[in-house]
Amino acid sequence: MTAPFTVHDRKPLPTGFLDDVRAVVGDRLGTGDAIRLQHGSSETHFDPVLPDAVAFVRSTEEVAALVKLCVAAEVPVVAFGAGTSLEGNVTPVRGGLTIDLSEMDAILAVNPEDFDCTVQAGVRREQLNEHLRDQGLFFPIDPGANATIGGMASTRASGTNAVRYGTMREAVLSLRVVTPDGRIVRTARRARKSAAGYDLTRLMIGAEGTLGIITEITLRLHGIPEAISAAVCAFETLQGAVDTVVQSIQIGVPVARIEILDEAQMRACNAYSKLDYPEKPTLLFEFHGSERHVQEQVETVREIAGHNGGGDFLWSNRPEERNRLWKARHEAYYAAMNQRPGAVGWSTDVCVPISRLVECIVETQADLARSTVPSTILGHVGDGNFHVVFAIDPNAPHEMHEVEALNERIVARALAMDGTCTGEHGIGLGKQQFLLDELGDAVDLMRLIKRTIDPKNLFNPGKIFQL
Amino acid sequence: MTAPFTVHDRKPLPTGFLDDVRAVVGDRLGTGDAIRLQHGSSETHFDPVLPDAVAFVRSTEEVAALVKLCVAAEVPVVAFGAGTSLEGNVTPVRGGLTIDLSEMDAILAVNPEDFDCTVQAGVRREQLNEHLRDQGLFFPIDPGANATIGGMASTRASGTNAVRYGTMREAVLSLRVVTPDGRIVRTARRARKSAAGYDLTRLMIGAEGTLGIITEITLRLHGIPEAISAAVCAFETLQGAVDTVVQSIQIGVPVARIEILDEAQMRACNAYSKLDYPEKPTLLFEFHGSERHVQEQVETVREIAGHNGGGDFLWSNRPEERNRLWKARHEAYYAAMNQRPGAVGWSTDVCVPISRLVECIVETQADLARSTVPSTILGHVGDGNFHVVFAIDPNAPHEMHEVEALNERIVARALAMDGTCTGEHGIGLGKQQFLLDELGDAVDLMRLIKRTIDPKNLFNPGKIFQL
Repeated sequence: MTAPFTVHDRKPLPTGFLDDVRAVVGDRLGTGDAIRLQHGSSETHFDPVLPDAVAFVRSTEEVAALVKLCVAAEVPVVAFGAGTSLEGNVTPVRGGLTIDLSEMDAILAVNPEDFDCTVQAGVRREQLNEHLRDQGLFFPIDPGANATIGGMASTRASGTNAVRYGTMREAVLSLRVVTPDGRIVRTARRARKSAAGYDLTRLMIGAEGTLGIITEITLRLHGIPEAISAAVCAFETLQGAVDTVVQSIQIGVPVARIEILDEAQMRACNAYSKLDYPEKPTLLFEFHGSERHVQEQVETVREIAGHNGGGDFLWSNRPEERNRLWKARHEAYYAAMNQRPGAVGWSTDVCVPISRLVECIVETQADLARSTVPSTILGHVGDGNFHVVFAIDPNAPHEMHEVEALNERIVARALAMDGTCTGEHGIGLGKQQFLLDELGDAVDLMRLIKRTIDPKNLFNPGKIFQL
Repeated sequence: MTAPFTVHDRKPLPTGFLDDVRAVVGDRLGTGDAIRLQHGSSETHFDPVLPDAVAFVRSTEEVAALVKLCVAAEVPVVAFGAGTSLEGNVTPVRGGLTIDLSEMDAILAVNPEDFDCTVQAGVRREQLNEHLRDQGLFFPIDPGANATIGGMASTRASGTNAVRYGTMREAVLSLRVVTPDGRIVRTARRARKSAAGYDLTRLMIGAEGTLGIITEITLRLHGIPEAISAAVCAFETLQGAVDTVVQSIQIGVPVARIEILDEAQMRACNAYSKLDYPEKPTLLFEFHGSERHVQEQVETVREIAGHNGGGDFLWSNRPEERNRLWKARHEAYYAAMNQRPGAVGWSTDVCVPISRLVECIVETQADLARSTVPSTILGHVGDGNFHVVFAIDPNAPHEMHEVEALNERIVARALAMDGTCTGEHGIGLGKQQFLLDELGDAVDLMRLIKRTIDPKNLFNPGKIFQL
């Protein structure tokens, strides 16, 4: 596969560096090929690039000690959580040390009265929600993958619930971060809001580990709603499904999730997750609230769907049925890949103002229909965000080029509609040119901040932009 | 009055500088005492410091031209909106040029289908809401004063609706900013969410004009709810009122506004706004939603209030009654001042996790009871935020010292509860030591960013922190 970056400026580790690292983490240091490959590979089409070593940390203090070693020895350092990112966000393109935070998985505090909790960066979202369930609380941000909270903060993740509950930008109250000078800073207190100085919390969220390493996160939580109803509704056309979304949002229904899957994606999900839904453009809904309020929302949306060629609502009100439904949604990427054994995946991600969503998706679908590469459309359309997943034959190089061109068209269309080149996957390696197209001179301001905070360009170098 | 800052390093304007400014803004340049005093005074206890000149701008391009002049001539530059800030946020402590953006008051675009709009920085929130009303939309952030949207963004304002609708941090989709290098950048597109690079939008929000000048803002809007109900409820004790707030929030009632006013503040409001509410600790509520949903919220909160010594709910369901109620709330600061003719005001502002709110307010009240300086407690308690307003006799210097000491105790208590030294007023001149107490080393990171983006320290110098 072609890769949209070049591996450059890779230097061998200085003599004695690994001994210094071992003095911090003991035998929690991996230098074997398997572990390096695991931390250098991506779930999508990016070529693997191996780190020189992987350190498994267990405390913020260990991270700070390693950061000091890396900076002193000028060794690149990449923070790694679950490795589920989609734009090559944790690929260590200049080698160096990958710090794996997955063993920092302690839930440090839950404050039910304040609807918040503090967790270590390696806690995974499913683990957190299992822990919270008995207290009647949940953490809504759900990007599909069972990602770590640290990784989700670093890529400004969102997912299926964002239309109602916001993204990681809104979900985080405070961070503990190891900055490139090796200091441990806390970006905010636990108050719900603050006007105290620059918003360092939001600066670190979405910085993809280029400005420091997030080690602890204080999160806003929500009460598990009294009533939850999930439904599946198939449509005759993709346009009918998207129109239903747009109209529901525009009249203000506070729907908790509203996901679209096109015909191809439904076919893939049925096969992979052993379901038997109609193989048509489909919306998955979830409604949260009091019994009365949920009923009111459902009535409104059902009426809108009816006007747009929607069929019956198939209900999943029992938790196990709902879990099966959302599990299938979460497996959509693997389902799409599974249709073409041995295929390489490419998942792109754009987000547009909702008034442009119908046009954007319909035109994208027409583009895809002209391609020979199998693809599916799916997304969190309530906030204007959708993905296209391509299953590429690795033995047919022209397919990779074709997808590159399609991706460029999809992003250019979103930008022309005043949208963004990524709603939630981040820039990573794959979207650097698009970031320039999107924000122009503002990217220089980002570079200025990066150069100041990380003057040696050691923190996840080569990501978001080239310096 | 003592001032917690020193006027330092003030230089005369370079020869010819005003001619250069006049070449940009023509006769929209003020150098007379009256206009300089108006732009150098504060609504609260800070000593006035006059700018050397005030330029009234009408476009982003004019701002950029003036910024280039100021940087070339090393003249300090302060952006000014409505001048309603409370921590000396726009006092030009090193003199220089104040850029008044109040004539940049065009509403550039309203996109009803997307629930957003783009405005120039000088648009005031009341003007915006009048403009939006016919389209069934409103902009919820309401700090009380009829501030400009640019000023509200710069101080990360929030106010009465924040418990339901968030603060300026959540309300802004994108900014147009003139950076200290004279460039005009747009920080984001109009998409609802984005993972494209560093969050420059949030970096500028709350930066109090120290990193550049915000000239245009794209805002999220909300649909005017089908039903709005406002109510007033008096309590026997302040604790009973706060308990009602905490319990309502904790069981998840999505109340739109929930404001507390203590006995002294109610007495002041009755006198100033010609009302006849009971002069007891009081909550003002507003509920938004469908008819059914509002009714459900009201029933729940009324029951909770009953358990906490609350009296009858006095309803204001007609718009004109509601407006009268909220106008009185918005005039609370002036009402408090009015009780002591000639008094100087000092309004402090803290925010704590809601589980600590009762303790924080009750202990604060005990502090105030021991003071001879008249004071009131009021606040947006749904998110843990409250204010104390002092009416200080300018001819009794010991009162200023007494209030300084009380303010220190109030802030120290909030910090000890993992709260913040300012929920919404910003750091300005008044809370710089408290910011250090609150965030420690993180303030060094803020300074680093400031020095990089504004290397000559010309943009609202002397605010938030000392370099």
